[in-house]
Amino acid sequence: MKFGPDILRQADLLATFSEDAPQVTRTYLSKEHKQAGEYLIGLMRDAGMTAGFDELGNIVGRYEAGVPFAPVVMTGSHQDSVRNAGKYYGLFGILSPIACVRELHRQGKRLPYTLEVVGFGDEEGVRFPATLVGSRAMAGQFDPAWLDQEDVDGVTMRAAMQAAGLAGTMDAITALQRDPARYLGFVEVHIEQGPVLNARTLPLGIVTSINGSVRCLGEITGMASHAGTTPMGQRRDAVPALAELALFLERRAASVPDVVGTIGQLQVPAGSINVVPGRVLFSLDMRATTDAARDALVADVQAELAAISQRRGLAFTLEETLRAPAAPSHPAWQARWEAAVSALGLPLLRMPSGAGHDAMKLNEVMPQAMLFVRGENSGISHNPLESSTNHDIDLSVQAFLHLLEQLSTP
Amino acid sequence: MKFGPDILRQADLLATFSEDAPQVTRTYLSKEHKQAGEYLIGLMRDAGMTAGFDELGNIVGRYEAGVPFAPVVMTGSHQDSVRNAGKYYGLFGILSPIACVRELHRQGKRLPYTLEVVGFGDEEGVRFPATLVGSRAMAGQFDPAWLDQEDVDGVTMRAAMQAAGLAGTMDAITALQRDPARYLGFVEVHIEQGPVLNARTLPLGIVTSINGSVRCLGEITGMASHAGTTPMGQRRDAVPALAELALFLERRAASVPDVVGTIGQLQVPAGSINVVPGRVLFSLDMRATTDAARDALVADVQAELAAISQRRGLAFTLEETLRAPAAPSHPAWQARWEAAVSALGLPLLRMPSGAGHDAMKLNEVMPQAMLFVRGENSGISHNPLESSTNHDIDLSVQAFLHLLEQLSTP
Repeated sequence: MKFGPDILRQADLLATFSEDAPQVTRTYLSKEHKQAGEYLIGLMRDAGMTAGFDELGNIVGRYEAGVPFAPVVMTGSHQDSVRNAGKYYGLFGILSPIACVRELHRQGKRLPYTLEVVGFGDEEGVRFPATLVGSRAMAGQFDPAWLDQEDVDGVTMRAAMQAAGLAGTMDAITALQRDPARYLGFVEVHIEQGPVLNARTLPLGIVTSINGSVRCLGEITGMASHAGTTPMGQRRDAVPALAELALFLERRAASVPDVVGTIGQLQVPAGSINVVPGRVLFSLDMRATTDAARDALVADVQAELAAISQRRGLAFTLEETLRAPAAPSHPAWQARWEAAVSALGLPLLRMPSGAGHDAMKLNEVMPQAMLFVRGENSGISHNPLESSTNHDIDLSVQAFLHLLEQLSTP
Repeated sequence: MKFGPDILRQADLLATFSEDAPQVTRTYLSKEHKQAGEYLIGLMRDAGMTAGFDELGNIVGRYEAGVPFAPVVMTGSHQDSVRNAGKYYGLFGILSPIACVRELHRQGKRLPYTLEVVGFGDEEGVRFPATLVGSRAMAGQFDPAWLDQEDVDGVTMRAAMQAAGLAGTMDAITALQRDPARYLGFVEVHIEQGPVLNARTLPLGIVTSINGSVRCLGEITGMASHAGTTPMGQRRDAVPALAELALFLERRAASVPDVVGTIGQLQVPAGSINVVPGRVLFSLDMRATTDAARDALVADVQAELAAISQRRGLAFTLEETLRAPAAPSHPAWQARWEAAVSALGLPLLRMPSGAGHDAMKLNEVMPQAMLFVRGENSGISHNPLESSTNHDIDLSVQAFLHLLEQLSTP
């Protein structure tokens, strides 16, 4: 195994740049975030790239093409983490292409395009409300209002940027937008963060689409009454209504491949053991491989909630809090990942990405496709139990090299 | 209407003895609780009774029999309230028999038994954890450990008794136990605290049984996982399991007359919108007219929870926190209430009491039966919206007089 041990060692070292070591927490523009960036820049330069921070604190390395006026292929992932995170998930997408460049550089090979490797400064949105800040800026979607967002200590994003030595001005940030005409596409390697590859004992998976999602906060309102004295037939109980909705959501989501629906938050506010609940609060998270499949799910769930409420004499509200479009993989780029995986003698498993990724933002301005690497421990992520193996990482770098070389021989 | 207006006026006046006027809150052994007791004692004496506080702060009035060595009939209800309560619910059961005695006394009538009218000092258990303290003591069930229970300010029940001028010793309390051999029975008039009489437009209802109840606290444990990346078929989601249980409980309770089941507390602890819930906490409140019907319900719910958990690969716990036996009305005493209601030309509606009452404790040492009075506003109680009418109260006192006189002519 040529690549796996180095990458695991690098990720373990990066885990020490943490705001609450021995836990792993690296939020946007923190001191440790910058230290991790400096380490990654060092790896990039050592591998034969030019590299540095951009005006958002993204790390950008370039392995220049072997020909003039060449187009660019972008790759990368995020270097920030959630609180008490795993050590691997975003970093694999930065460390793997660095390993590829080191290998190409060692062989003295240049590519007919410039490879741009990006470590996005913020994907998770842990410190400030905005998420995917790095990839959104490159897609031309940085919202100037974000500069005034505050962290829990009241520090604005602008002030945090300036403390990190960045300009913190829209002029500097707008300049980061990429010109789609110069880019062939974006590819990203990421640990699956789910149980599918693990359950099928496959090291690599082909992403067909980053799922479109809708999130809602809902409330069902009935009438609180005495749990002892209100006959079953005279209740306006919010909980059985929620129960019907939960089972409908489960059935409806399961009836379509690669569609998921979740009630993650659920509460009877100030509930008493001897009071029929007059109110229940809940969240909905609904995702599908296409916007059409997602919207059909959302519409069915809304209609069912309305029907349940009417039948039971209840009221409800449902407020949409997030809507993210699906990002289907570009067929030609997906085919390149498939060829790369097949070349390793591995079976192809095509699967959606249930989680969001930087690729979903780049998708809005250029073709993209992702490769998933199996996670151990049933694919748990955003958790210290997140784990991977030398073997799987090695295969992902080999696949990545294969993809890069396919583009060299058109 | 002879009796209704006086009783409503007395209840309105008693509402001003409140710890947080204009709300109505009168907890055991508070200053206002004692003031209300003194007012009630005054009413009792004015009606022709001997009356005073006993060593628990219960109010006890006696209308002595017209013959020597006569047995005793006990009646009454509680004078304490929940916080921000209605003005009427316990007090009707004290004020109604006082009105009866005033009328008997006015007519110069004595009964062939002594009528003992009790205002129980504590039924609700709001200030201290113990509930039904007054009626339990008379049934010989006062637990000495209760004297060391503390209120939110750290005041023990013993200290509160002593501050109210009571001895606060077990000797004094044990002496309150009634000798069943001397008692013919216990009757209680109470506002329904439920919607049944209101929905049927009936002023009075015959209680067939005070429901037996079981309360449990439960937890279903699955595995928290990513809401986007965990396929529907690979989840161990606690919420749909709870949903199945909630719908089973609703169906199962509704399938048997006068059985009720409620999930009043429900929470996914620290739930996130994008995380499949690995845990849900809930309460169960199950009541039935007989212990056998209640136990059958509890057994079915436990079996269903076990089956759901096994099918879904989840674990669960279910801890019983309360078990109260059903208190069926004594047939002869129930028949007297029925005769009294029929004598008023009213139809008979027989119904269980879903709520607990002092009668349920006396039931353990003597025959008992209760009469319900309709509540307005769908029978809401434990709430400032609790309401009754002159008309209904008048009917309940007339029925009460009829019952007392039935016993005079054996």
